[in-house]
Amino acid sequence: MESGSRERQPAVAGLSEAELLARIFPRLAMGSAHTEATLLGPGDDAAVLAVPDGRTVISIDTQVEDQDFRLAWANGYRTTGYDVGWKAAAQNLSDINAMGASATSMVVSLTLPPDTPVSWVEDLADGLIAGIRELGAGRCSVAGGDLGRGREISVTVAVLGTLDGGAAVLRSGAQPGDVLALAGTAGHAAAGLALLESDVPVDRLNPEQRVFLELQCRPRPPLSAGPAARAAGASAMLDISDGLVRDGRRLAAASQVAVDLDPEQLARLASVLQPAAELLRADAREWVLSGGEDHGLLATFPPGIQLPPGFTAIGSVQALGINEVPGVRIAGRSADTGGWDHFAH
Amino acid sequence: MESGSRERQPAVAGLSEAELLARIFPRLAMGSAHTEATLLGPGDDAAVLAVPDGRTVISIDTQVEDQDFRLAWANGYRTTGYDVGWKAAAQNLSDINAMGASATSMVVSLTLPPDTPVSWVEDLADGLIAGIRELGAGRCSVAGGDLGRGREISVTVAVLGTLDGGAAVLRSGAQPGDVLALAGTAGHAAAGLALLESDVPVDRLNPEQRVFLELQCRPRPPLSAGPAARAAGASAMLDISDGLVRDGRRLAAASQVAVDLDPEQLARLASVLQPAAELLRADAREWVLSGGEDHGLLATFPPGIQLPPGFTAIGSVQALGINEVPGVRIAGRSADTGGWDHFAH
Repeated sequence: MESGSRERQPAVAGLSEAELLARIFPRLAMGSAHTEATLLGPGDDAAVLAVPDGRTVISIDTQVEDQDFRLAWANGYRTTGYDVGWKAAAQNLSDINAMGASATSMVVSLTLPPDTPVSWVEDLADGLIAGIRELGAGRCSVAGGDLGRGREISVTVAVLGTLDGGAAVLRSGAQPGDVLALAGTAGHAAAGLALLESDVPVDRLNPEQRVFLELQCRPRPPLSAGPAARAAGASAMLDISDGLVRDGRRLAAASQVAVDLDPEQLARLASVLQPAAELLRADAREWVLSGGEDHGLLATFPPGIQLPPGFTAIGSVQALGINEVPGVRIAGRSADTGGWDHFAH
Repeated sequence: MESGSRERQPAVAGLSEAELLARIFPRLAMGSAHTEATLLGPGDDAAVLAVPDGRTVISIDTQVEDQDFRLAWANGYRTTGYDVGWKAAAQNLSDINAMGASATSMVVSLTLPPDTPVSWVEDLADGLIAGIRELGAGRCSVAGGDLGRGREISVTVAVLGTLDGGAAVLRSGAQPGDVLALAGTAGHAAAGLALLESDVPVDRLNPEQRVFLELQCRPRPPLSAGPAARAAGASAMLDISDGLVRDGRRLAAASQVAVDLDPEQLARLASVLQPAAELLRADAREWVLSGGEDHGLLATFPPGIQLPPGFTAIGSVQALGINEVPGVRIAGRSADTGGWDHFAH
């Protein structure tokens, strides 16, 4: 969206809440036609969802303008409503995936400045549904939502999922001797962020470089990997949203172990990022270690288990030494890269 | 909170996300000690909730600074974190109540400017839990949440509820001949809003007037009334969040009927508001008809059913005349008061 465009197009302030909902609901309902979870959809005080498993997994996440995305980036890229909708879907679906569950329903709360173009909001609804579909969350539909005004665009999604009778994969189950494995990419979204914040115009990027930018704006979490890891017997798992080291440290702390990364695997992951790293004279290995937002999965598997499709071994789980605090090692030595924190940065 | 106080107290920017969560979680857990719904609480990628009924009711709602509340009001009242937490709980619990359900779980997403005092956020957590408890949602606990930065304070709650094996009470089931009934108050929160926006200093209000202001800041939805209405056989029900006429019109439209309000009952409801109306030279009846945010319940019952505790008959459901559109009447004549719309006002 161009910064001047809010004035030129019909804005949400010109519609009543009911009129705006009437523009959005048909787009969202397109995604829910083939699901069974919604017993009562939008239009009443609340929705009613089927939970045949007797348990539901639930997560909530908010994306805010200028914090989680910028409408206009330094390199000239304009974030679309479609991007924001897709990213909201992807981030939330990833949290369900990380428990070994499959998403069944979403409810969405949108806060919009009055001058937001109606077309931008329609685009957001389209991106949300496209994210759900194209990422493979075919059982998930949008069951309801809420609209309100604010000074900045804010999108909150609460997402529910099912374990289909299985046990959730927690962060706390890793054991010394387990294999550490990664599903999805690491550092691609960080490379994309660096490109967006660079002075290299977006139209000067080659396709190899542009793919990182697109992954930052429209992340692609590996949604089949979570339930597959659960079925295969993963001992621990979490979503890499704040970087391999930072999230690895969380898994280590919850399991009271050390997580050891294999430098050869880190080099392999970094080499994929060279087209962006060379352009920006950046450190690809730093992106791999501290870049979040790819929403890959970091999981541990007992030794001898065949890794499910999508996972690659990148290290191992080790026992803590005497007086050692849980953390991340690289080839046995402590790794102290930060990663993202919402407040302290 | 005083406008200058953000600088003087420790602010959230001084804490990491983990440190801030460590300040909030213990306060929220105090409210969840006696519930059975949370199988896995905060700390992993998602929570896991028990849903023994096989269905869950769900709603989501966002409160934004300067839209849904002001930190400082014209009459000198300062909105506390406690107020904002309470109101977030109350509004969301009311949506579950309006389906005839009982709330079981909440997840909360907080967006905070970096200069927000830590004590204000702790106060918000306390208000949220106090609202849940004191309003009687004893089965509801906070299962998880999310923290992030923004330019304005924003609180989103997604709430789940159970019908305990019963059928949800929809907006669409009212039949001509049904009794129209109200649980809770009408217009009190509107009177409170008018007081907050007036030039009458808060310390000049007498206790009778002050109660309206407190209801605007800390609404008291009648949470036992929703499940009681379902059990009694209510044919339709909704939460009055945007005013008696506007929400009555929604019930009428969903049920394809006319809703007729009894002028004597309206006069009775208005008379309670006189202590505020006389002070402000305002029209108490207008507050009754168009004031939202009390979060009372408007319900319809088949004739001959004894109204459950908390409900008072305030009118009747009538058949539409030829070419008549569904709507609200007062003693048979069309009522055309607006009520609140988030965008068109």
